[in-house]
Amino acid sequence: MDNLTEKFVKRENIYKGKVLDVVKDTVLLPNGKESAREFCIHVGAVCVLPLLDDGTVIMERQYRYAHGRVFFEIPAGKLNSPDEDRLEAAKRELKEETGAVAGKYTFLGGYDSTPAICNEKIDIYLAEDIKFEDRKLDEDEFLDVERVPLETLFQMVMNGEIRDGKTQVAILKTYELKKFTQK
Amino acid sequence: MDNLTEKFVKRENIYKGKVLDVVKDTVLLPNGKESAREFCIHVGAVCVLPLLDDGTVIMERQYRYAHGRVFFEIPAGKLNSPDEDRLEAAKRELKEETGAVAGKYTFLGGYDSTPAICNEKIDIYLAEDIKFEDRKLDEDEFLDVERVPLETLFQMVMNGEIRDGKTQVAILKTYELKKFTQK
Repeated sequence: MDNLTEKFVKRENIYKGKVLDVVKDTVLLPNGKESAREFCIHVGAVCVLPLLDDGTVIMERQYRYAHGRVFFEIPAGKLNSPDEDRLEAAKRELKEETGAVAGKYTFLGGYDSTPAICNEKIDIYLAEDIKFEDRKLDEDEFLDVERVPLETLFQMVMNGEIRDGKTQVAILKTYELKKFTQK
Repeated sequence: MDNLTEKFVKRENIYKGKVLDVVKDTVLLPNGKESAREFCIHVGAVCVLPLLDDGTVIMERQYRYAHGRVFFEIPAGKLNSPDEDRLEAAKRELKEETGAVAGKYTFLGGYDSTPAICNEKIDIYLAEDIKFEDRKLDEDEFLDVERVPLETLFQMVMNGEIRDGKTQVAILKTYELKKFTQK
């Protein structure tokens, strides 16, 4: 892939924030010319599709300020550190946001959200054999939860009613895996 | 949804870049407390899954510097301006990157890549009835194209071999739409 690879020359640190850093790197293009690559550095995240025995999924409504509207999405959260165990992070976020504790986790694959401008990597899990304990939201975290049939969610994704990327992938993959086994 | 909405108080402009701007807004949370929301402002983008009559898809290999690796993804590109017609942008990007011109476009839905940190919206199109003309890459744009059966791509998504989010959604939706009609 040497005909495609871009090589690091130098970095300008633009911003060091709470949830993202921004850098502007000078790179060498495959043709030997210099160019700039500005992008966000993100710690990484996890998301969980919690599928109950009755075929419903625990979904969340959460205000996403960057879009100025309430999103309909699966439970998710960022890692506490880049080397945090991702399955442990998934268990933590699911418990905090919904109160659910799952007996079985299946890794559904990774999700790179927007590779042209951000290095964010999200691991997607399917959670099953779910029991409920107490929900424990972070202070200043606001979200509503509700249960929706997987079949309904699949139709909402196909109709374009669910726009969140990670949620679309998680629903489409889970539906594909489960469509012949769910009642 | 008033129990979830966050209200704008003031903005700090952090960075004005070529492909993204970064801002840090002070907001009022639903509980009346102030908090900060830092995020990227992006012009928006389009992506196209070009499906040929023989059931293959035109895929691209492109180096994504933020991840430091070559990505396997469908043709895509950002809008020239926020109010650019998205279908026209899709036609332009497909032609420039692959030389393909499609007789039929189907809108597959929107994709919000990472709503917690960026307002990027991507429109996803399926392109069919494809003819080839000359490819015309932007200067300093490097990518390889190849044709891969939709069935193979679907398996690669399910196996976690394709991580790009918009590409996963486009492949899963197209496969769902076409699986009973493709040979």
